[in-house]
Amino acid sequence: MSRSLEKEFGKVLKEYRNNAGHSQESLALKCGLDRTYISLLERGLRSPTINTIFSICSVLNVRPSQLISKVEERLR
Amino acid sequence: MSRSLEKEFGKVLKEYRNNAGHSQESLALKCGLDRTYISLLERGLRSPTINTIFSICSVLNVRPSQLISKVEERLR
Repeated sequence: MSRSLEKEFGKVLKEYRNNAGHSQESLALKCGLDRTYISLLERGLRSPTINTIFSICSVLNVRPSQLISKVEERLR
Repeated sequence: MSRSLEKEFGKVLKEYRNNAGHSQESLALKCGLDRTYISLLERGLRSPTINTIFSICSVLNVRPSQLISKVEERLR
């Protein structure tokens, strides 16, 4: 369950990032994160904290609850 | 912002936990977490990962997106 949660979060993140027209690098820069960390998140290899989720969502201009809701749908 | 995010998450968690009739100890047990960690979360002293959020919400029988949405409201 845990691994698939991270996998689905990663896929949803990648979709929202692409929709927002951001590269991993530009998203990382705006969030104060490392590009490799964004890459790890998108591949489901890291579990983001609530802070990371809120800062990424702020840059992508999406409500964190909306992104989380999308992850829930995928896990159903 | 980050500290207040954790503070608001902690307050919302405590409310949902109380509404569900769980003590910190019974919630911790059901999530496989330590009671002191639940206490730290409720006081805004730790930033939960998405895994922690999903497992707590599963025990409290609330959608993670609903809890996160409540946190967003408080931050507005």
